Amino acid sequence: MDPTDPVALTRALIRCPSVTPEEGGALSLLADALSAAGFECTRVDRAGVPNLFARWGTRGHARTFGFNGHTDVVPPGDPAAWTHDPFGADLHDGEIWGRGAVDMKSAVAAFVAAAVDCVRDTPPDGAIVLTITGDEEGPSVDGTRALLDWMASAGERMSACLVGEPTCPETFGEMIKIGRRGSLTAHLTVRGVQGHAAYPHRAVNPLPAMARLMDRLASHSLDDGTDHFDPSTLAIVTIDTGNPATNVIPADTRGSVNIRFNDRHSGASLTEWIEAEATRADAEFGTRTEVEIKLSGEAFLTPPGPLSELVANAVAAETGIRPVLSTTGGTSDARFVKDHCPVVEFGLVGRGMHAVDERVPEGEVRALKAVYARILRDYFAG
Amino acid sequence: MDPTDPVALTRALIRCPSVTPEEGGALSLLADALSAAGFECTRVDRAGVPNLFARWGTRGHARTFGFNGHTDVVPPGDPAAWTHDPFGADLHDGEIWGRGAVDMKSAVAAFVAAAVDCVRDTPPDGAIVLTITGDEEGPSVDGTRALLDWMASAGERMSACLVGEPTCPETFGEMIKIGRRGSLTAHLTVRGVQGHAAYPHRAVNPLPAMARLMDRLASHSLDDGTDHFDPSTLAIVTIDTGNPATNVIPADTRGSVNIRFNDRHSGASLTEWIEAEATRADAEFGTRTEVEIKLSGEAFLTPPGPLSELVANAVAAETGIRPVLSTTGGTSDARFVKDHCPVVEFGLVGRGMHAVDERVPEGEVRALKAVYARILRDYFAG
Repeated sequence: MDPTDPVALTRALIRCPSVTPEEGGALSLLADALSAAGFECTRVDRAGVPNLFARWGTRGHARTFGFNGHTDVVPPGDPAAWTHDPFGADLHDGEIWGRGAVDMKSAVAAFVAAAVDCVRDTPPDGAIVLTITGDEEGPSVDGTRALLDWMASAGERMSACLVGEPTCPETFGEMIKIGRRGSLTAHLTVRGVQGHAAYPHRAVNPLPAMARLMDRLASHSLDDGTDHFDPSTLAIVTIDTGNPATNVIPADTRGSVNIRFNDRHSGASLTEWIEAEATRADAEFGTRTEVEIKLSGEAFLTPPGPLSELVANAVAAETGIRPVLSTTGGTSDARFVKDHCPVVEFGLVGRGMHAVDERVPEGEVRALKAVYARILRDYFAG
Repeated sequence: MDPTDPVALTRALIRCPSVTPEEGGALSLLADALSAAGFECTRVDRAGVPNLFARWGTRGHARTFGFNGHTDVVPPGDPAAWTHDPFGADLHDGEIWGRGAVDMKSAVAAFVAAAVDCVRDTPPDGAIVLTITGDEEGPSVDGTRALLDWMASAGERMSACLVGEPTCPETFGEMIKIGRRGSLTAHLTVRGVQGHAAYPHRAVNPLPAMARLMDRLASHSLDDGTDHFDPSTLAIVTIDTGNPATNVIPADTRGSVNIRFNDRHSGASLTEWIEAEATRADAEFGTRTEVEIKLSGEAFLTPPGPLSELVANAVAAETGIRPVLSTTGGTSDARFVKDHCPVVEFGLVGRGMHAVDERVPEGEVRALKAVYARILRDYFAG
């Protein structure tokens, strides 16, 4: 198989049943192809999660361009619901069918193909690093994080990194991500004193405190957006008590809110705000509220500059579309990479990812490789 | 067994295992004793619930004094947790032990004993009616209600009625109930549109509407009490969503409030208020809220007058304590009787009812019979 053909490489990867946390042969296939092309490959598995590090050029070179991606995929669900075998990689009417066609085996194939082309044609004065994990769709604890941890300890570096996640809502080329909102979930347990519903003054009902607290959290306007971010949002996702008796005031109740926040906030500032509101409600109602915070990721931004300019110019040159620089959407492994070096994201149209009959136009995969190849050329020429 | 001995009769009743809905031999025992004393007894069973109607004197007599009570009891729980067999009716240190000793086999025994005494000693110019149900602790749908329905259709009547439920908080004689607060439960289902927590503007989250609605209901002061009633109370008893996913906005959520209300309100007025608040929240949040009302009973009052005076005088004469006229506490079958005739409640000290090691001092049972006997004498003398 020609490793510079992104369609052939995508199809080979789709045939690897790499549903998280299975490696499914995907990373081995890439390691073989990259090794043959002169990349130094290291498996950086941690806690059973398979990860691949590949470098062409000198370790720690000051001009090292990095790509990050993942080969694991979400489960296909009932294969009978699919028009084509989800692991068959059928080509039909110019589209490649299968789980991972969009998210994101095509992009991995595209940057591997572009990287191999780059070092074959005109070996650059610099280095190329590829970090590819087998756990982005799962807990993401021992995936890209493990690769970055290992790199730090091994003297490896990236000067800049592109994450190949799908970034375009409708049309290929229209959007680059230069950051992501943070995500935080607060689990609140309000404790009172159980009692009979006929004598509420003898009990401490946790539910009015929960209602007031939740109303305040949900009514509060966190901000109106910032230069590069939409306004932060808070969603109450659940309130649960589980009290079946209508004549009993329950002892406690639980609720959770999920916050997607921009660069005006941090996990610490939001925690402080939620705890202050909980304390205020406790003072009003005589309750005791426990706040447990789960921070999925801080908001981060690679401010518009050389890296986003490089990528946007390459996209515009190859597609004729000037991409917008956006920070919308959920989280990605860019939230880990940003602690290492400037990072932006550019990839396919995201429609159809995680769905039945996931598929990608062949032409879009070739165009993505062309964009990545131009980025490498321009980076090393610059 | 001497039916005028309330202690012997209480013990015989405790030995009947009449856990709701079991008759357990309790009503048969009473019917036998009352028939032997000249009462006309009719079993008014409905939908499997056993009920006993007993009358001495002429049907529909204009001076008919009634007693109401129940022989069913709540389950004893683990008998091993009891010091004495819950159905053994042991006499120990002057106390009768067993399930129903307080609630309310003693009171049934006391009014049966008083009624038999009354008709034996000096047959009154009037009638005595006893309505005794086997389902007051259960659904209460086919218990006292069935007796009252049957009485209406059979031309039976009561001119006044005393319900023998425990009414005294600490000391025997201290409290008569002349009414009860109403009880209403509202089940609220707030419906929205499910969505991703990262994009709350694309969903309609039912939880902020639930929080606001519940905060408003719980914060509202229904009243400051009325001449004979404490302030009405509202308790949120549960809010439940059951959404395990912190990145999902749920489609709907449910919550319940329980209201104990005085004679300033009615089931209809409270329903109107809750529905108006639900409509207001729906208008603010774009939700659709369904309100389901379960009315356990309207508030009712037998205003202080001849009946409460009669009972209070008898209590004072027998105990030396002037009882307060109260409307506190939960519901009782008086809520049904009040549609039939003036009704008050007087009985034992309620402490220990429904608990392990339920027991009653022998002397208190004899004192209760004495009070009931004096009420009958004074009523027919008056």
